[in-house]
Amino acid sequence: MTRMLLSALACALVAAPLAAQEKPAEAPTPASVVAAAKSAEWTAIDPADLLVMTLAPSAKGEERQVIVQLLPPPFSQGWVGNIRALARAHWWDGTSVYRVVDNWVAQWGDADETKPLPEGIREVPESEYVTPVQRDPAGVRDYVLTPKRAEIVINRFIDSYAVTGFVAGWPMALDDKGGGTAWPVHCYGHVGVARDLSPATGSGAELYAVIGHAPRQLDRNIAVVGRVIEGIEHLATLQRGKGEAGVYDDPALRVPILSVRLADELPEGERPRFQYLASESESFARYLHVRANRSDPFYRVPAGAVDLCNVQVPIRREPQG
Amino acid sequence: MTRMLLSALACALVAAPLAAQEKPAEAPTPASVVAAAKSAEWTAIDPADLLVMTLAPSAKGEERQVIVQLLPPPFSQGWVGNIRALARAHWWDGTSVYRVVDNWVAQWGDADETKPLPEGIREVPESEYVTPVQRDPAGVRDYVLTPKRAEIVINRFIDSYAVTGFVAGWPMALDDKGGGTAWPVHCYGHVGVARDLSPATGSGAELYAVIGHAPRQLDRNIAVVGRVIEGIEHLATLQRGKGEAGVYDDPALRVPILSVRLADELPEGERPRFQYLASESESFARYLHVRANRSDPFYRVPAGAVDLCNVQVPIRREPQG
Repeated sequence: MTRMLLSALACALVAAPLAAQEKPAEAPTPASVVAAAKSAEWTAIDPADLLVMTLAPSAKGEERQVIVQLLPPPFSQGWVGNIRALARAHWWDGTSVYRVVDNWVAQWGDADETKPLPEGIREVPESEYVTPVQRDPAGVRDYVLTPKRAEIVINRFIDSYAVTGFVAGWPMALDDKGGGTAWPVHCYGHVGVARDLSPATGSGAELYAVIGHAPRQLDRNIAVVGRVIEGIEHLATLQRGKGEAGVYDDPALRVPILSVRLADELPEGERPRFQYLASESESFARYLHVRANRSDPFYRVPAGAVDLCNVQVPIRREPQG
Repeated sequence: MTRMLLSALACALVAAPLAAQEKPAEAPTPASVVAAAKSAEWTAIDPADLLVMTLAPSAKGEERQVIVQLLPPPFSQGWVGNIRALARAHWWDGTSVYRVVDNWVAQWGDADETKPLPEGIREVPESEYVTPVQRDPAGVRDYVLTPKRAEIVINRFIDSYAVTGFVAGWPMALDDKGGGTAWPVHCYGHVGVARDLSPATGSGAELYAVIGHAPRQLDRNIAVVGRVIEGIEHLATLQRGKGEAGVYDDPALRVPILSVRLADELPEGERPRFQYLASESESFARYLHVRANRSDPFYRVPAGAVDLCNVQVPIRREPQG
């Protein structure tokens, strides 16, 4: 049963090897910590913050839906505003996924870049790649966002690139020198705004999702606007492009986008309901600790650390009933 | 042309925006540093260290070949020896890729785990997950491997998990406390040995390749034995499994493995010839620096660092002629 054990859920599948009287309390796994979290530790995601992208069915006839959660204020709101306008105009309907590069990104929008943008799309300055942050004047928390004073839960584990933490369920990096800034990061599944050379910042019409190891060198260089919270496999399994920079050389390979809708535009009963495990919750702190210190029966040496993009903030469909 | 610019090769495609007399020397990119490396800085990979795995053609009739480079001594040689014996016995012919988990692994071997192993497969102890390392007694290099005294080129950039470096073209982690050890790591495309619960270490018959963000928590917990150097997309694009732990619930979904051969068993003319950029070379040092400090026209803020699995040691087909 080798194949079953290389799994986050593995320890649940394995009979305890010790006699009953010697059996220690089962060491927690990330999955068991999440399963034990209290209802109150889960925070609902507003359907107004979800984009539902429906791709044409696969060659096998499988339906393909990709759900993107948009970043909350104060992060990347210029682009997020553009994306809301594009979605409300149904601008992506009839466009395609036209570029897929292994261990890099899958990109969608108007492959020919000739489709006029709707009214109200604004040009966002590079300064909005980051948001101001300051040490908590009240001294209660290490850092808060200014001016909103939202809390940043600092990640004590070292990151190669920056000081890091979590804000409202999102991994963030920050510069803790005086007058510092925070910024959203490029992790697996995160969504960014393709652009031309600096100072262009992109409108938000051409988007990509990361389908490989976190390309953190893009942080602060491209706007991160959200993350795929369901259906990333429909992008990650797409045939890789063989044209320039991974664009499909044959337009017939493009994957049609049937529609992109903000979930609050869908009929009430069709709106997807998701929750994230609150960054400030005890269960999240425990989850972070256990991800860094695996001690369930599969592991023999805990890493003692975890890099930011390996934390994977828990997100789930709202439980029924 | 938004799509063309989100690319490692982008700056080569862009006309310089400045007038000729003002044009600065073009800032190097990782690709330009690699392109400028001298022939002598490239080291041939012995075909005896390459596994050529041929999958059944795709539904579209596309041929699918995956080439795995095995780790050199002294790393993981117990499992590598088993893998050589399995390949020489043509043991994988007729087996399959039977488990695919998004942002995790694609796994292959005998899905039913009933096929007898060939002669000469040995059980490898957990102690072989790591290899001894010591500070260079000659004081020339920071660290050397014992007893082989191979050189470790230390990576000065911080890693979340360990001190890191490069040995013979491979990323490595190490424990630099007295009497320390070094070990190979789990990066995108790296190949490991599936196993049951500790102290089982796996035979090497069931292998997986990483198809997502580097799962470094597995380092020192599972044997890393190699890396996919060509054709990883044939694994990364496979349909994800919906059975327990991502195993294909329907055996008809398994992807048949037609053959796995050590490249030195192939006719001379069919042996793939690859080279890696030597870890000790000046060009590699420059490449590492540029990966951490992107300053070509696409980037506005260099990260100033790079995590180990984001370095991606340059590997290429041997140039013709």
